[in-house]
Amino acid sequence: MEEYLEFAISIAKYAGSKIREGFSNELDFNYKSDKTVVTEIDKDINHYLIQKVMDKYPEHAVIGEEESYKTDSNYVWVCDPIDGTGMFTARVPVSVFSLAFVVNGEVQVGVVYDPYLDNMYTAIKGKGAYCNGGKIHANNLHLGDLGYRLNYEMWDKAKYDTMTIAKDLLSNVKVSSIGSVARACMAVASGYFSCDLFPGVAHGNCDIAASSLIVEEAGGRVTDFNGFTQRYDEDINGAIISNGISHDEILEYVRKKV
Amino acid sequence: MEEYLEFAISIAKYAGSKIREGFSNELDFNYKSDKTVVTEIDKDINHYLIQKVMDKYPEHAVIGEEESYKTDSNYVWVCDPIDGTGMFTARVPVSVFSLAFVVNGEVQVGVVYDPYLDNMYTAIKGKGAYCNGGKIHANNLHLGDLGYRLNYEMWDKAKYDTMTIAKDLLSNVKVSSIGSVARACMAVASGYFSCDLFPGVAHGNCDIAASSLIVEEAGGRVTDFNGFTQRYDEDINGAIISNGISHDEILEYVRKKV
Repeated sequence: MEEYLEFAISIAKYAGSKIREGFSNELDFNYKSDKTVVTEIDKDINHYLIQKVMDKYPEHAVIGEEESYKTDSNYVWVCDPIDGTGMFTARVPVSVFSLAFVVNGEVQVGVVYDPYLDNMYTAIKGKGAYCNGGKIHANNLHLGDLGYRLNYEMWDKAKYDTMTIAKDLLSNVKVSSIGSVARACMAVASGYFSCDLFPGVAHGNCDIAASSLIVEEAGGRVTDFNGFTQRYDEDINGAIISNGISHDEILEYVRKKV
Repeated sequence: MEEYLEFAISIAKYAGSKIREGFSNELDFNYKSDKTVVTEIDKDINHYLIQKVMDKYPEHAVIGEEESYKTDSNYVWVCDPIDGTGMFTARVPVSVFSLAFVVNGEVQVGVVYDPYLDNMYTAIKGKGAYCNGGKIHANNLHLGDLGYRLNYEMWDKAKYDTMTIAKDLLSNVKVSSIGSVARACMAVASGYFSCDLFPGVAHGNCDIAASSLIVEEAGGRVTDFNGFTQRYDEDINGAIISNGISHDEILEYVRKKV
């Protein structure tokens, strides 16, 4: 898996340079049918990954937020070239690159790269989570402890009403919605946030495949909205990404609401 | 006013260097009675401002988020040393320094500094809004136009339920809550966001005094939740900060809800 990690990091570095360049310049962008924004840079990174996979691992498949490459393989690269494209176009430096190597539905390698802070988050299953080579850990806060921060994503017609769940928890937690689920997950993996609620279903695996492994390797926990683990080479059923210790507390609360 | 602007910029530069330094290192912080976090760096910047005002303009007053300096003057420096301290401690680079020079309740000079992107936002009343010396402008989007982004702040026991207002608008707008109202205001002034809903009342003037002028000089509009302008040398009645063109649309919507 070390080789796959190195490959993922090399793609992340390319993505980072493209994202930083775009951030400081005029951006070509348009809107997809779901009214979300996509830039030429999202497409470029996604396409670059596919070219590199076809070169090096032609039997592997790629599932990307903007473009995919299908094979019969159970080895799948799952990628969101820019998670938080809206914030990227708004020049708020919270967007990240995300790439997972998934085998038979299970994430084996995860890389998330924050190009603004030059933070490379990495994990190989069973070997811990790292940021720039240093071990990272989720925090030990229970729901309601001082400093507990809950982040959420929400959009029109989302399957789960994460915004109302977050609002109902306001007396117990600090709430934010910074605009990139993978970036928020890295804050969970690093102990800064305690939980993230992600209502994504279709293509939702692209956004959090890599993060799910990094958070779990940092001591956190990731399940769907019913508390089950899930495959990351297909659509998911939303995700609750937590520090681990508060996962059941959040899950119990969420179950009452959905 | 040019002199006051130069003075404000000099304080902003000091604040920026402290914020950047703190961001990359261990932070001393604790929690205030309202459960919000404060660091030694917030206090240091606030105290530095007071020392500098006492040196240079001893007759002026200072209203700071962490410390104030009272005189009988109608000339008041209104400051939030770090707007978005929670995100500062969580190492999400969206917090800013904010300082306004207020005369008889009216903001005459505003400076907001983003130390991560090295963006110095400035305005003198009647003379336009600038970022690093280049003119900035709010956008021309109506509520519901593609690309309309509404940001909000919300916390337990806030006077206005901005979160429900934002949620009800989800089919018309993209919603976020990035964790710093002044940073979100600068996104409005720069044309990237279209509106921000800020429910702050007590000390709320510290957070948005400078931003209110910068947004207005960029062509936007700032009122309380009833559509009135307000003094910034005392507590405010929440704030709606918009691109201007959509202000009445938002206000009409908000009035139905509060």
